[in-house]
Amino acid sequence: MTEASRYMALALSLGRRGFGRVWPNPAVGCVIVKDGRIIGRGWTQPGGRPHAETQALAQAAAQARGADVYVTLEPCAHHGKTPPCAEALVRAGVARVFAATGDPDPRVHGAGFRALEQAGIHVQSGILEAQARRDNAGFFARVELDRPFMTLKLAGSFDGRIATGTGESKWITGPQARRVVHALRARHDAVMVGAGTARKDDPALTVRDLGTAWQPARVVISRRLDVPLMGVLARTATEVPVILCHGKDADPQLIRTWQDLGAVLLPCAARGGQLDPADVMRQLAGHGLTRIFCEGGSALAASLFEADLVDELIGFTAGLAIGAEGLPSIGALGLSKLSRAPRYDLRSTQTVGPDVMHIWERAQP
Amino acid sequence: MTEASRYMALALSLGRRGFGRVWPNPAVGCVIVKDGRIIGRGWTQPGGRPHAETQALAQAAAQARGADVYVTLEPCAHHGKTPPCAEALVRAGVARVFAATGDPDPRVHGAGFRALEQAGIHVQSGILEAQARRDNAGFFARVELDRPFMTLKLAGSFDGRIATGTGESKWITGPQARRVVHALRARHDAVMVGAGTARKDDPALTVRDLGTAWQPARVVISRRLDVPLMGVLARTATEVPVILCHGKDADPQLIRTWQDLGAVLLPCAARGGQLDPADVMRQLAGHGLTRIFCEGGSALAASLFEADLVDELIGFTAGLAIGAEGLPSIGALGLSKLSRAPRYDLRSTQTVGPDVMHIWERAQP
Repeated sequence: MTEASRYMALALSLGRRGFGRVWPNPAVGCVIVKDGRIIGRGWTQPGGRPHAETQALAQAAAQARGADVYVTLEPCAHHGKTPPCAEALVRAGVARVFAATGDPDPRVHGAGFRALEQAGIHVQSGILEAQARRDNAGFFARVELDRPFMTLKLAGSFDGRIATGTGESKWITGPQARRVVHALRARHDAVMVGAGTARKDDPALTVRDLGTAWQPARVVISRRLDVPLMGVLARTATEVPVILCHGKDADPQLIRTWQDLGAVLLPCAARGGQLDPADVMRQLAGHGLTRIFCEGGSALAASLFEADLVDELIGFTAGLAIGAEGLPSIGALGLSKLSRAPRYDLRSTQTVGPDVMHIWERAQP
Repeated sequence: MTEASRYMALALSLGRRGFGRVWPNPAVGCVIVKDGRIIGRGWTQPGGRPHAETQALAQAAAQARGADVYVTLEPCAHHGKTPPCAEALVRAGVARVFAATGDPDPRVHGAGFRALEQAGIHVQSGILEAQARRDNAGFFARVELDRPFMTLKLAGSFDGRIATGTGESKWITGPQARRVVHALRARHDAVMVGAGTARKDDPALTVRDLGTAWQPARVVISRRLDVPLMGVLARTATEVPVILCHGKDADPQLIRTWQDLGAVLLPCAARGGQLDPADVMRQLAGHGLTRIFCEGGSALAASLFEADLVDELIGFTAGLAIGAEGLPSIGALGLSKLSRAPRYDLRSTQTVGPDVMHIWERAQP
């Protein structure tokens, strides 16, 4: 690993501190180095501001003159709520800027690098770029694909069942796996479930027992807004955001009721009697969400697979057999041939308490 | 690890060389040590004879006098096809015998140890006993429970499907997993499938491409002997044993045909219109089988779980989604409550090519 990669790896690890807390912005990290000494570290702050560079420059103060800057994304060049980072770096008199990757945001998209170069700063991009793009896959998906990055959790028995035939699902996986799930929720902008799961389990979808001070938003997909008005989500919508993706034909009275309860309502297009998953994703991206953690149920999981919207899969396999009457983790996919099955590459596997955790990402074509 | 455990671990590893080749006998290993030097090593030979002690004593020859013997099972004391090992050890003049565990066979059952002690040999049992009992779980199950030790393989998509709704199953897991399956077959006395799998896949169930010189027997469970007479199993029954477990009401003409083809026929009791899995196991144990590797399908897997006959589970999870129309890995279990689900403890997990392999054993109550 070169010196530049080492500093960039550190900047990336700082950037990841922002996961789940900085949307609609990317989670950027920044390290400023002078004479082999780290004189500034920063990462995008909760809510998306201040930016990582601002934080790191504030630490470095006057020492920033002539220093090297390692930043995981091209510095911004547009005047938004704060002056652009490229301008701040120029003003601070830094000598060189090393970036992991360019910013796809049309308002930046090379303008940040150009502003630096025009001021005589040496610029190099592409250091640990693959990791940077993976870390900010949510931001890239939102900007480039107009949808959030989607992680789907599947937790079931070793025969792939998430509940018994009678609907019993507590608990299939162990407390350790549930704890990991809470940590995963905390690293995403929002936790998402289908209306069936919201009705059946009445889940809180919050992060618990991890000492975190923030909560991801809760998203429920329900064409008819058929989500219990007396449920946990309804009761807590003013405390932790509840976002309801519903059909344009949903009952206006129900829409008003949910608005009064404090929920955000996103009307989405329907297709063939169901909400169009692609439009649901577009609306969620439009709302600013970049990283979504979907926890089922099987119908929502199937519709996401059918629309090729599952980017990452996190499976938990528990040591029990439920049998064919059990509720499947993924609903009907209508596959005509095995070669058409959605395929995923294994990234890692490990034991989590009594269960196996396996992480997959969409297979490269 | 004490010195005794180290030698016993070696003896156990030698014993495992007999897996799949020594039934109805246990796969025993033996190490003879004198003055800190290993002067004899032996393991049960294919077919079950000569025994491990005989092999090790032959290597040690005259040096065995005054030596220490490490053997993974109590030496036999009964005159069978060969003179008893306990007698051979006495004649060789060994000083001490360390055993991992006693032999549950009623013809031995302490008599081996007593014969040694009566000859003035120091005897100690219980060294690495848990591992020895696990290694020879098949032999212990046959003698103590009158059934073989049953390993069930489940290889499917991450939603627990072993084929598409149209029956397509080639290939869900990768070539590396299939190679591991062949190695697993080679370590078992027999490979077992249900009649449905025999009809649908027409499998050979042999060990291929591993350079092994022996083959496990092939067992098919079919109440009505509804197994293709022109299939691979029928055509190769004289080369590698085919054992058919069938109902007593199977067509006598079919029984004769299969006998003529070279198959072994084991009539089994039925219960509620289906073969009684417990009696099937009894008949297979009566035939001498100690370790069976069951490869499905879902109906057979379900009947084994229902009768609590699955001792070990080996799962392979592939990176694809098949969806709810796919064939489930385990058929209907009729579970009324989640707390009644058969439970398994995770022993290990690893990646095998693109797939995850996970090994489970029946949970301790």
